[in-house]
Amino acid sequence: MAVLVKTNRRVTLAERPVGFPKESDFAVDEVAVGEPGPGEVLVRTLWVSVDPYQRGRMSEARSYARPLERGDVITSQSLGEVVESNDRRFAPGDLAVGQLGWQERAVARAGSLRKVPEAVDPPTLALHVVGQTGLTAYFGLLDVGRPRPGDTVVVSGAAGAVGQVVGQIAKLMGCRTVGIAGGPDKCTDCTLYGYDIAIDYKDEDFRSELKAACPDGVDVYFDNVGGDVSGSVYGRLNVGARIVICGQISQYNLERPDPTFVPSLLIVFRARMEGFLVSDYAHRFDEAAGRLARWVAEGKITWREDVTEGLENAPAAFIGMLRGENRGKALVKVAERGA
Amino acid sequence: MAVLVKTNRRVTLAERPVGFPKESDFAVDEVAVGEPGPGEVLVRTLWVSVDPYQRGRMSEARSYARPLERGDVITSQSLGEVVESNDRRFAPGDLAVGQLGWQERAVARAGSLRKVPEAVDPPTLALHVVGQTGLTAYFGLLDVGRPRPGDTVVVSGAAGAVGQVVGQIAKLMGCRTVGIAGGPDKCTDCTLYGYDIAIDYKDEDFRSELKAACPDGVDVYFDNVGGDVSGSVYGRLNVGARIVICGQISQYNLERPDPTFVPSLLIVFRARMEGFLVSDYAHRFDEAAGRLARWVAEGKITWREDVTEGLENAPAAFIGMLRGENRGKALVKVAERGA
Repeated sequence: MAVLVKTNRRVTLAERPVGFPKESDFAVDEVAVGEPGPGEVLVRTLWVSVDPYQRGRMSEARSYARPLERGDVITSQSLGEVVESNDRRFAPGDLAVGQLGWQERAVARAGSLRKVPEAVDPPTLALHVVGQTGLTAYFGLLDVGRPRPGDTVVVSGAAGAVGQVVGQIAKLMGCRTVGIAGGPDKCTDCTLYGYDIAIDYKDEDFRSELKAACPDGVDVYFDNVGGDVSGSVYGRLNVGARIVICGQISQYNLERPDPTFVPSLLIVFRARMEGFLVSDYAHRFDEAAGRLARWVAEGKITWREDVTEGLENAPAAFIGMLRGENRGKALVKVAERGA
Repeated sequence: MAVLVKTNRRVTLAERPVGFPKESDFAVDEVAVGEPGPGEVLVRTLWVSVDPYQRGRMSEARSYARPLERGDVITSQSLGEVVESNDRRFAPGDLAVGQLGWQERAVARAGSLRKVPEAVDPPTLALHVVGQTGLTAYFGLLDVGRPRPGDTVVVSGAAGAVGQVVGQIAKLMGCRTVGIAGGPDKCTDCTLYGYDIAIDYKDEDFRSELKAACPDGVDVYFDNVGGDVSGSVYGRLNVGARIVICGQISQYNLERPDPTFVPSLLIVFRARMEGFLVSDYAHRFDEAAGRLARWVAEGKITWREDVTEGLENAPAAFIGMLRGENRGKALVKVAERGA
């Protein structure tokens, strides 16, 4: 019994992906799990998150975080159950989220984890709407995009984990909301996520549909995608527009990202383009997560999850997400609570 | 006598330039000058300004101002002497600056002009350091770039009309200043303009010199140039960097400006790229011009003028400036005061 509990199945980086990742870029191994030291807890993973930024971690290109090395566990936010605790902030049975990676068990510093209140229901919300992707939507839209009532807010990747929250917050702020997504199903979902109108970038008439959807121009462009989709939006900016660079998923599998932006547009529109990382707002997570949780409790924010079963299937879920196959927040279920 | 006073020689747009402008894109004509109506003044031009933004006015591409049509007087800031005034704010003999164009005389609304105090000496300063280009430097650096003491501020077009003021304000703000200019003469001038170090972008080793000049990275990049020069700076940004898009002179003579920027860099560096127009700060011109004039009076800001004689030579001066041939603020002397 002790032996079983002490083993840890993990998904690691087998090879740095070249271009689009393949399943063979990942490996599954099994190692012994360490003992938690003072101030540490042992967490048993229930769910792991699948997100576009993980592609960046697999690449050697200069970025905001150290790249993964071959053999490293894939970085992710995970939701788990505390099994052993050497810190008074956690007790066995507590739910916690943290940057624990794609693995069945992890030892972590208690201070690096956030406890998931029982009121967060389902607890997987702590991995999206009231967790990392919801916080990303919140700070990116409100602090970087600074929408005003009546503004037109356009969001690319509108049906994705971040985009589905951006649309709903923008609507709560009194904005007109235009979602850009790929395919009719995601566009249908957008209407649940606070978007007044959704446009399919795969449509032949995408550009003219976008123009028709933004008769008063674009005040805030919340960009998760980049590339040609964004190129279509840039020309519709209003004076004083804000372009929030949250992600550029269209560029993540290129050997080298393309220059896609003409800086002089920012003079024409006296506009601002700004990037951000949610981790820079850590000191305000409690404020924002509380507000997001209240909106959820009041039925003002809804969501959709796209669940894959089994840790070993996380690479396939990740590759599918990069292809745009997920419908809602991509999550992998690893284990049942209390099992 | 009356006939002579009432004629007006003008430089107009003969043809929209395709690519790099030629002298034949301009024409000189002579027309009757109108009488000033109520609230208007008649101004006799002494100096006209030559600036990169004028290239944009000659193009049909969407911009922040209506393009010139064939036959229109070339847009410019001019310094002139009031000849007749139907407004109590101006008396004959007063000096005034305004958007009067490349012409010998102009009738203008008094409210569209700024009086040049006699303390502004030489009065041509009202066309640069304490005028449009100085105000552009002031608001672009301080309001958009928001430098902090100790920041490294890099400026492209550092020896140009805006760049020569940016370097000196940045130095007054306690920043480390790095100027980028074309050729050894301009680089020498940069050391007069508050730059701790100047780099010649025409040097083969430009990239490595830039790296060596910015051992602590780049906090503010004040960009007048765009294109490859800017491409070399982007990779050296620090977290939290601000890129001020003031101009993109490298792009103005292209049929279509190139995409030159990779937006995901703004995520890596949590950086901001922002464009601005000095005209949006008109409500603060008095504050800023007063401060610039004090710095000049205290010997804290110096400048260099590149003077061409004769209104008819304005097109040649303009083309030379686009080629980077001017050394200092490009001005055309049209007439002597009181002559």
